[in-house]
Amino acid sequence: MSYALWYWTGIPGRGEFVRLPLEAAAIPYEEKTWQREGDAALVKDLARPRIDPPFAPPYIVTEDGLVVSQTANILLYLGERHPQIAPRELAGRHWVHQLQLTLMDLVAESHDVHHPVGVDLYYEDQKPEAARRAEGFRGRRIPKFLDYFERVLVQRGAWLAGGSHWSYADLSLFHVVEGLCFAFPRRMAVLRPDFKRVWALRDTVEALPELQTYLASERRLPFSDGLFRHYPELDGEG
Amino acid sequence: MSYALWYWTGIPGRGEFVRLPLEAAAIPYEEKTWQREGDAALVKDLARPRIDPPFAPPYIVTEDGLVVSQTANILLYLGERHPQIAPRELAGRHWVHQLQLTLMDLVAESHDVHHPVGVDLYYEDQKPEAARRAEGFRGRRIPKFLDYFERVLVQRGAWLAGGSHWSYADLSLFHVVEGLCFAFPRRMAVLRPDFKRVWALRDTVEALPELQTYLASERRLPFSDGLFRHYPELDGEG
Repeated sequence: MSYALWYWTGIPGRGEFVRLPLEAAAIPYEEKTWQREGDAALVKDLARPRIDPPFAPPYIVTEDGLVVSQTANILLYLGERHPQIAPRELAGRHWVHQLQLTLMDLVAESHDVHHPVGVDLYYEDQKPEAARRAEGFRGRRIPKFLDYFERVLVQRGAWLAGGSHWSYADLSLFHVVEGLCFAFPRRMAVLRPDFKRVWALRDTVEALPELQTYLASERRLPFSDGLFRHYPELDGEG
Repeated sequence: MSYALWYWTGIPGRGEFVRLPLEAAAIPYEEKTWQREGDAALVKDLARPRIDPPFAPPYIVTEDGLVVSQTANILLYLGERHPQIAPRELAGRHWVHQLQLTLMDLVAESHDVHHPVGVDLYYEDQKPEAARRAEGFRGRRIPKFLDYFERVLVQRGAWLAGGSHWSYADLSLFHVVEGLCFAFPRRMAVLRPDFKRVWALRDTVEALPELQTYLASERRLPFSDGLFRHYPELDGEG
């Protein structure tokens, strides 16, 4: 089984949540816009009339031509086909899926910090609003989400679904923590001691043998001006 | 099979997306906080240490004690157990799930119009920011989402998954259109002629025989100060 993955070029973005388990489980995939056809090809593909149009990238296309979109839905689908990235039983599948959806909510809130007034306006045109939103995000929202995942790990052990092997939700939590540390380094340094299990998971994922080649490759794109952005004026210790 | 449904009292909110298919398919459920135990009981239940804590309501509890949370995940789970509310085959299940996730994105954006700076601040404390955000939401985001669902209906027919029977995503689209018409009546009146298929679906759902008892009951809560809110100053024709 092999997949075509469509996503914007140049940023990890939501595509990264799909790439990480594909890479870690050595599932073959082709990045359709990777330094080749580019964003123009993606825009063209998105506009194509089809029976199952995606609303937005990322989306994958299977060998049979099935299109699956919405990040968490892609992971759910991949988890059903590739049991090495998700629990097999019904309860476990819905459990990691809800964790993933909660992480996607956090990701959306992280993005809205720098775009509180409109996704289609520049950050420069909404700086005062962003400063207000960042305050609540740093002060209340990040701790609320981290506290939730810490509580889950208290109950479950080293991995979010329990057991002795990661699921796609663990790789996503790793990436979200990385993104938050990139965007809000001062705040995350203050929070770190209170969320030891979350950081332990982050460290374990970073050291996974099956991820080393990918993490060291140029395919692992650096954070820049995507979902997670570092504007020093939006960061702070509190 | 019967379910306990936990959600905030007094507003349709995200709980309504779960209620609609439960009611339409006559699946037994008990509203845990309906005019009885109330929000205090919900807050207490949310704080209970458990192996599968929800991050936020709504969540359902099955007869076996399984907790399923995140609105779209609940619908996915119910769809797997109750084939009258979702397609049976793999492709169809993921298709309606991605539609649901896209609707939930629209719902989150609708909410953020009146809370652009912080979910934990009052609307009154973010009115200028809300006015700016509403402009882009009315002008660009609502049409973008409606255009997407209209395109899907062009491809699929009367229902979002095709075929001759509704799925939970159709009931959700109905409810989202209702919510947007409540919050932005002037804007939605202008848009209506351009999205005939979406409104036809809305009208068909409203007239479904299996929903009449529910829609006429006091269980169908009116919109007020939840996800969809009517602030005249945030509405407009353009």
